[in-house]
Amino acid sequence: MSITTPDGFVASGLAAGIKSSGVLDLALLATEDGRAVPTAATFTQNLACAAPVQISRAHMAANGGRAAGVVISSGNANAATGDQGREDAAAMCRQTAEGLGVAAEEVLVCSTGLIGIPLPMGPIEAGIPRLVAARAGGPEAGADAAQGILTTDSGRKQVLIVNPGFTVAGMAKGAGMLAPDMATMLAFLTTDAAVEPGPLADLLRTAVASSFNSMSVDGCTSTNDTVILMASGKAGPCDLDVVAAAVTEACSDLARQMAADAEGSSRIFQVKVTGGYSDGEAHAGARKVAESMLVKCSINGTDPYWGRVASELGSAGVEFDMDRLTIAYGGTTVCRGGVEIPHDRAAVAEHMAGSLVSIECDLGLADGRGVVMGVELGHGYIDENRTTS
Amino acid sequence: MSITTPDGFVASGLAAGIKSSGVLDLALLATEDGRAVPTAATFTQNLACAAPVQISRAHMAANGGRAAGVVISSGNANAATGDQGREDAAAMCRQTAEGLGVAAEEVLVCSTGLIGIPLPMGPIEAGIPRLVAARAGGPEAGADAAQGILTTDSGRKQVLIVNPGFTVAGMAKGAGMLAPDMATMLAFLTTDAAVEPGPLADLLRTAVASSFNSMSVDGCTSTNDTVILMASGKAGPCDLDVVAAAVTEACSDLARQMAADAEGSSRIFQVKVTGGYSDGEAHAGARKVAESMLVKCSINGTDPYWGRVASELGSAGVEFDMDRLTIAYGGTTVCRGGVEIPHDRAAVAEHMAGSLVSIECDLGLADGRGVVMGVELGHGYIDENRTTS
Repeated sequence: MSITTPDGFVASGLAAGIKSSGVLDLALLATEDGRAVPTAATFTQNLACAAPVQISRAHMAANGGRAAGVVISSGNANAATGDQGREDAAAMCRQTAEGLGVAAEEVLVCSTGLIGIPLPMGPIEAGIPRLVAARAGGPEAGADAAQGILTTDSGRKQVLIVNPGFTVAGMAKGAGMLAPDMATMLAFLTTDAAVEPGPLADLLRTAVASSFNSMSVDGCTSTNDTVILMASGKAGPCDLDVVAAAVTEACSDLARQMAADAEGSSRIFQVKVTGGYSDGEAHAGARKVAESMLVKCSINGTDPYWGRVASELGSAGVEFDMDRLTIAYGGTTVCRGGVEIPHDRAAVAEHMAGSLVSIECDLGLADGRGVVMGVELGHGYIDENRTTS
Repeated sequence: MSITTPDGFVASGLAAGIKSSGVLDLALLATEDGRAVPTAATFTQNLACAAPVQISRAHMAANGGRAAGVVISSGNANAATGDQGREDAAAMCRQTAEGLGVAAEEVLVCSTGLIGIPLPMGPIEAGIPRLVAARAGGPEAGADAAQGILTTDSGRKQVLIVNPGFTVAGMAKGAGMLAPDMATMLAFLTTDAAVEPGPLADLLRTAVASSFNSMSVDGCTSTNDTVILMASGKAGPCDLDVVAAAVTEACSDLARQMAADAEGSSRIFQVKVTGGYSDGEAHAGARKVAESMLVKCSINGTDPYWGRVASELGSAGVEFDMDRLTIAYGGTTVCRGGVEIPHDRAAVAEHMAGSLVSIECDLGLADGRGVVMGVELGHGYIDENRTTS
């Protein structure tokens, strides 16, 4: 399986020399026939967004929601690089478009890596013609592309959802939980279902909200986050709800792969908030807890300090009544009505020593629900992030 | 100098036995003559606020902005303790009021320590009569009070501002930068200037905004933060602006003492944002940078990673234009117009190795200014906060 499994797509990946280690660092995803097809994209909300985000946004505004390809580089984010960075990102699109025989605005561009360093355009300009020439269908070319977009990831992240009548495939890089500064989240999805640009954008937005946007490493927002979905239409029209469900499933699977990539070194926890005034408020509460430095430390220390969880919910800017609050760890209720109740401490300790800690909070107000994944805060995070060298 | 230096106040402190270590853990501040005097108070905005905050708020609403005393306990926060916690906090006020011969709502109450554990009322009820009996003017009684409110602080924090005609004094506990979970910020100020309750509340709000609220350890909001200012009026009417300036100076001095208390183990940094669309936006931008886990790690690693600073400003929810951004470390500009410029790397490295790192950001938009103090993120923070035991 690979990003090229849905009918109508080709891909490639190679080592252009952006990364000094000599591993793959340039990737291409394109339509097989050089036609621009319905394409949706979501980008980081960071106003200090990288040059490739600015160029891709402009291209999406100009191409009517139809693109023929995406060129991706890894090792350098081309962020905080000013006019030169924008020129470099635009040149990557122009050169790729020439190779594919399409208009420049029908090509999107993504980069990932360190911020503030000019993109090494020599190797990239030498690499793009080879990248375009190497494009092919089949799993090997798809695997090369999935490899070429990685930075600190321990391995490729790919997904395939097969439905009667159409397929959805995806590849991603991201999280590398210990070094989120390198952890721009990039995801690319393809489908052979025929979906028009408008509905395609709607269903991608929904899928992203319930998958990638429900994970938080440290509350820092990347300059380069991008998710792109292309629909070749080769499989003909399909039930939109079924396509939407498949895209959501693909995004959720890739998000789980990002979380799992950290398991060797960092523990993950899940904050589930129910009983919120609305889904949005429940989600905001869950995010405040998942991003709390003190909660993250308590996960590292396997200490069920529910008082801190309550304090974070109380300062999350959402409707809150301490006297209605219930908190459980792994199904064992430790706090009800805002006070500690007698509970099985051994069961809680055993749960907290496991690989995925679950904190369940009920606000007792209405029916709002939200889930956010967090990552513990341990020495490793600091050691990885204290210097860029 | 002590909290009792302004005319009209008495204080006391003793070891009631809340803390197992046997150090002072109960304190009293009261008017000398048992009269209720104009009093202003600001409390944490956390909706999961502790019982003493709830009771003190209710008393301030009932007493017309006039109080006769404050009773303070340390070692246990009386937070997340439900109805019993509220009863305990009210009982502390009632018992203190009886001893002072005033109404219960003329007494405020503060507590600081761990969350979620019932207050040990036996030692407190036995201690309060002794505490009331021990109240006295003079520096020794004031020092006992300043000692009795501490938790992880390395020593007493006191201040005295002498003006022609009136004085302002203060005592505080707080920060203990490595263990902010124990770090409720409590501050108590006295003045002999005659100021009515309304203007007194206004000037305290302004003073707190530019002092205590411009420091951030980790973005977590305490359940117990409280600042109380009492004005005996013994010195007669004074120029309000001069009193306001003296109170702000006292608060800023106490805030600096909190920051300095961490110097042995944690490095402090200052984020100064100018050129914001408004002071509020500049302050919000400075806070986002000061609370960023990645920026805090970079201070720990003495790494001037300005790209991350730019990224935080871009996601701070304020007006931002990367092309107008300037960033300097200790006066050495490293980024102008959103891109790195040639700069003296040795000067930046020398500055970052110093005891107070300064990050200066100019948004280049308008005249808004804001400063927030932050604390590095190193192994020590995690080691202190991973468990409550």
